[in-house]
Amino acid sequence: MIYLDNAATTKPCPEAVSAAAKAMTECFGNPSSLHRMGLDAQLLLDSARRTVADSLGTESGCIYFTSGATESNNLALRGASAAYGRKRKKIVASSVEHASVEETLQALERAGFEVVRISPADGRFSAADFVNACDDDTVLLTMMYVNNENGYILPVPEVFSAVKRRYPHIITHTDCVQAYMKLPVSARRLNAELISLSGHKIHGGKGCGVLYIRKGVRVLPVVTGGGQEKGIRSGTEGVPMAAAMGAAVAALAPGISERWERAVQLREKLVSLMSEIPGVEINSPEDGSPYVMSISAAGKRSEIMLHYLEQRDIYVSSGSACSRGAQSGVPEQFGITGKRADSILRVSITAETTPQELEEFAQALRDGINSVRG
Amino acid sequence: MIYLDNAATTKPCPEAVSAAAKAMTECFGNPSSLHRMGLDAQLLLDSARRTVADSLGTESGCIYFTSGATESNNLALRGASAAYGRKRKKIVASSVEHASVEETLQALERAGFEVVRISPADGRFSAADFVNACDDDTVLLTMMYVNNENGYILPVPEVFSAVKRRYPHIITHTDCVQAYMKLPVSARRLNAELISLSGHKIHGGKGCGVLYIRKGVRVLPVVTGGGQEKGIRSGTEGVPMAAAMGAAVAALAPGISERWERAVQLREKLVSLMSEIPGVEINSPEDGSPYVMSISAAGKRSEIMLHYLEQRDIYVSSGSACSRGAQSGVPEQFGITGKRADSILRVSITAETTPQELEEFAQALRDGINSVRG
Repeated sequence: MIYLDNAATTKPCPEAVSAAAKAMTECFGNPSSLHRMGLDAQLLLDSARRTVADSLGTESGCIYFTSGATESNNLALRGASAAYGRKRKKIVASSVEHASVEETLQALERAGFEVVRISPADGRFSAADFVNACDDDTVLLTMMYVNNENGYILPVPEVFSAVKRRYPHIITHTDCVQAYMKLPVSARRLNAELISLSGHKIHGGKGCGVLYIRKGVRVLPVVTGGGQEKGIRSGTEGVPMAAAMGAAVAALAPGISERWERAVQLREKLVSLMSEIPGVEINSPEDGSPYVMSISAAGKRSEIMLHYLEQRDIYVSSGSACSRGAQSGVPEQFGITGKRADSILRVSITAETTPQELEEFAQALRDGINSVRG
Repeated sequence: MIYLDNAATTKPCPEAVSAAAKAMTECFGNPSSLHRMGLDAQLLLDSARRTVADSLGTESGCIYFTSGATESNNLALRGASAAYGRKRKKIVASSVEHASVEETLQALERAGFEVVRISPADGRFSAADFVNACDDDTVLLTMMYVNNENGYILPVPEVFSAVKRRYPHIITHTDCVQAYMKLPVSARRLNAELISLSGHKIHGGKGCGVLYIRKGVRVLPVVTGGGQEKGIRSGTEGVPMAAAMGAAVAALAPGISERWERAVQLREKLVSLMSEIPGVEINSPEDGSPYVMSISAAGKRSEIMLHYLEQRDIYVSSGSACSRGAQSGVPEQFGITGKRADSILRVSITAETTPQELEEFAQALRDGINSVRG
């Protein structure tokens, strides 16, 4: 099996699997219970919390566990706009956000907020466009760090720093799902007050996310109840997957730059292989994340190529998994339309992907383009 | 270790642990991915969905996975009141709901709804009180099936049937967290349109719940994004814990009545043991769930007794775990106040609890009452 769909989800690492098993067998208490069984579960959770906090260069008190990045994004946007959006009704966002941000922005629009979406011009985002869109009436600025469909790296640190200098009241949120554990995500360097993370994109497991909330920033809860996670996110914590996420971060955090180098080499290999196949075009920017590459397969329809490759036990995606193949607006934002957009394949690797796997993928792609219709 | 805090959380059964491990190793794909790796994860999820549906006597299409019962309760109450509460602004509820219902009702009150809370009279709920509180302006009726603090079984089937006959427009919701897999929970027999369930209370794992939504009933989402769970609950499904919950239900569903009989015998044993300890009073009704018993420990403060028992490796709780020892309003609703309320211990068993464990608990309780101050 050649799995090249790591932007959709990743295989949990052995450390994550062990941590989840431990939480389900030895430390199965309820973290809210006052006795030792509860304490043991709480300690497991605290340890995962500290690991995540360390990885962002922050304190445990800023880390809130959720059920996943979708919930984190909802909590960030709904919670901060509820806390600060009584008078300020404008939200600035990029035009290429994940559905969990974009759909939530649309819900906020229906609730009376104005959303200004910044598009790239000629395939590039300009930091100035974001800064200029912000004003005294802006409550919230949200932009993802790495685009999930093509690996584009948005100018989050520049924009957030400039905006916070001019408009200290604007709350800055970044969806770092595709950046976390791939490039350094420092809460301070990004100047982000809210950061969304996912466990299952970093070899943890499905069912755990994190929202980082800078100390002093208020977010009203979306889900109410027993007051867990300091009242920000009620509900018994999902200890097994939180422990799995912590274990994955502990395993990955020390090797971020080393893995990045390997990913860059793999990307160069992939670019070179793709350039040899007639009609294949690369849609990702050269300075994007090496982990995600969008290509267009010589006009062949994405789903057809995807299933052809699947028969060769090679797994890629058409666009993002979250939209189940429905075309998002992202390619168009980057000027990719028509047949080129209809034939997009997303190839997303890990640092453990081998050059040989990429060669096999390239051969299969070439065969597919030559043999399938459509 | 003698674990008598099963209403707070349960130890995952071996089937649940295996299912979670399988979801993390073999079937790690994203259920939304269009290729076979995605399909395998989708099939695992569908199988868990079908198992839960069967257990409620309903179809898979009515089962929505969430991160836990707190989210299910929030989705039910917020989602149904958003869908149906434009003109009808009254909600009828019991006065002894779990925090995830009660806190959410308070949020809805702040948003303009009127909540009528029905209290027990002389320790008993009257079905007529609920029915009489409902009227043409009522949008929603919510009552738990089994109380988490004392095992009281509320007259859900009678109330829901009477209310639906007179006011077909009222949406009926029941939090069945402490009932599920303990007594039969049939969506049809309960006449419930919305049912909340938890995985970790039934030997599944923490981080998975279910909301049953009767076909045709509308619930607006609380969390928006990629449109998973038919748009009702976005976010990549937490496959490992959903699979664990499905495995636990598959293991437990066939033996509900047999386990109930064993629990009834254990309860009789416990009642008899408690009656022999001077000053110990039983706060649970005789016809309550045999799985949960509230006692008052001769005026000794709950936390002190809890920690005494913990030293003997025996685990019970003071009130519910969710409120972290903060006294809920439930004892007072049942007429239990003062020292008797301050000395409450909740003993919650499984059918696998042994008579000998109960004897050891009783001996430790007796020793504790004789030796601790306060």
